[in-house]
Amino acid sequence: MKLAILFGGASYEHEISIVSAITVMEKLHNFSLEFIFCDQDHRFYKIERSQMMAKTFASGAHKKLPQLSVENGAFVQKKMFGSERLEMPVLNLIHGADGEDGTIASLLGFYDISYIGPRPTASVFSYDKMHTKWFAEAIGVKTVAYESMNVNARREIKTALPFIIKPARLGSSIGVSVIKETSEIEYALDVAFEFDDNIIIEPFIEGVKEYNLAGYSANGGIHFSIVEEPQKNEFLDFDKKYLDFSRSSAVSEAKIDAQLVSQLEQTFERIYTNMFEGALIRCDFFVVDGEVLLNEINPIPGSMANYLFADFEHVINALLANLPQQRRPQVNYQYIHSINQAKGK
Amino acid sequence: MKLAILFGGASYEHEISIVSAITVMEKLHNFSLEFIFCDQDHRFYKIERSQMMAKTFASGAHKKLPQLSVENGAFVQKKMFGSERLEMPVLNLIHGADGEDGTIASLLGFYDISYIGPRPTASVFSYDKMHTKWFAEAIGVKTVAYESMNVNARREIKTALPFIIKPARLGSSIGVSVIKETSEIEYALDVAFEFDDNIIIEPFIEGVKEYNLAGYSANGGIHFSIVEEPQKNEFLDFDKKYLDFSRSSAVSEAKIDAQLVSQLEQTFERIYTNMFEGALIRCDFFVVDGEVLLNEINPIPGSMANYLFADFEHVINALLANLPQQRRPQVNYQYIHSINQAKGK
Repeated sequence: MKLAILFGGASYEHEISIVSAITVMEKLHNFSLEFIFCDQDHRFYKIERSQMMAKTFASGAHKKLPQLSVENGAFVQKKMFGSERLEMPVLNLIHGADGEDGTIASLLGFYDISYIGPRPTASVFSYDKMHTKWFAEAIGVKTVAYESMNVNARREIKTALPFIIKPARLGSSIGVSVIKETSEIEYALDVAFEFDDNIIIEPFIEGVKEYNLAGYSANGGIHFSIVEEPQKNEFLDFDKKYLDFSRSSAVSEAKIDAQLVSQLEQTFERIYTNMFEGALIRCDFFVVDGEVLLNEINPIPGSMANYLFADFEHVINALLANLPQQRRPQVNYQYIHSINQAKGK
Repeated sequence: MKLAILFGGASYEHEISIVSAITVMEKLHNFSLEFIFCDQDHRFYKIERSQMMAKTFASGAHKKLPQLSVENGAFVQKKMFGSERLEMPVLNLIHGADGEDGTIASLLGFYDISYIGPRPTASVFSYDKMHTKWFAEAIGVKTVAYESMNVNARREIKTALPFIIKPARLGSSIGVSVIKETSEIEYALDVAFEFDDNIIIEPFIEGVKEYNLAGYSANGGIHFSIVEEPQKNEFLDFDKKYLDFSRSSAVSEAKIDAQLVSQLEQTFERIYTNMFEGALIRCDFFVVDGEVLLNEINPIPGSMANYLFADFEHVINALLANLPQQRRPQVNYQYIHSINQAKGK
């Protein structure tokens, strides 16, 4: 099976995308893989398997490798005589901006390149935490209470201490602070606003039970991963999350009863259908007083959450066989023709 | 002032985009204009001013004109020796799919080409009528009550007769029906589902007062057009709307009191700020029992609603001088460097 892994991007999560790509590469033995790197200036490079190491990019060595352009149906490498087309589906592994905000999805869709990953609309509803709240509200999925604030309208926070301050649009804990005392607020706001003009404030729930569940749609149904109870350290900081993106060994299943598993799966299904068709997503849930709350949707989870699935190669194959088809309207100029006829032209 | 008008697209509104582009061209005398046509197969062509006629496209004559590719910073025409870059901002005049769904916005943003038009997120919230409802609800703007239905879950409609059935994601009245008798429902559903998998059902309010208001943000404030009371014929059908896109003569202001104008402007401002920065939008409102309801957001209105502004060239100049700046995060590989240092590499 041919597959191109697209990674990098002009994003605060550029580096973890590299880690993610290397990890996924090592899990897909039976695939014929190509590697496409998007640098911070939005140039695409073709990377050989032997060069798939963090230092290739950190050292700038990739700049000497062949550049690719995007054309209808494929990424293309111009050669001395003619060109080589990478005719194969793409796995969008760009985390954060570009990859998860819908930009790359729109680009691939426009050029009719099929891909694993969230479509543009699904990206908008998962990338910005405020839009995730609106989406959850509309489909009847509960979330943690919140307030939002814009950098141009700083004001007193109404949420009671302790609370958590997050930039609206970043993952991987970048710019996130847990606030226990009033004196910490100003600095935390400055930090969060450095990354985004909009922030979210949520009550910090001490010792909340957290569960992660991944899944995807194929052959008419949703297929779930095991449920994981992530190890907690107040909340995962960036260094921990960074290492998290290189996870490749199976984790043990959360010790929870079948009823809670079923509740989590039902909530996941409501979120996924049909918004996230074409993507493998990981939902992070809180459970408070027996109630399931959506914390976050990761539409391109670190290393594709491979460690939550028993047979990851099967998962990618099933996704590839079930990618959504785009319908492009046919243009027939019937109105222009009929108007010209009426005018006698 | 240099400006490239981008029009066409793989959309049911392809033809009205052509009409729109020709109309806007005729309103921008003092601009140095270029014309970029996107055909239904997503190829870009450079069109000379003298070829800006509907028949150029309906006859397929455009296929003999120079093709353009999109590169960092500009649309580019390859020539025998070297290439010519169209280094100028773009006016996104592609109505419907491609233009209003965020695809073209993402493409231009990715390649760092500045443009007048809705950003990708704003596109998602205005393109799909259901997402507009979610957005309006979240920002406290009232809309008409509604229910939605998916093609795979056809069921009885709860809304009382008469009601209106619309595909969730099309403008220009395509696929829309007003239902007055139960016997008309099945056919109207078939028609609407032909254009979209999701539909919206709303009560049809006989003789509702309708007002259109356009506006844009520049120099720190919102600038409004006059308020128009569109001529009504139950609702505008596609032929009427089609002609509507070629409007270029000033319309007369709706005869309403200052208080209602102010109510409409305040509602517009709540919708626009900051979601629609960079775009000139037209909001179509209903007024029911003195209450303003949002009916529709047109983020790329037909012929840019030029007929609602006294000085349309000034409007476009002001928009161009106030386009939102994109910030791209700088990638510095600090995590990879620090991890490699820790490993002694």
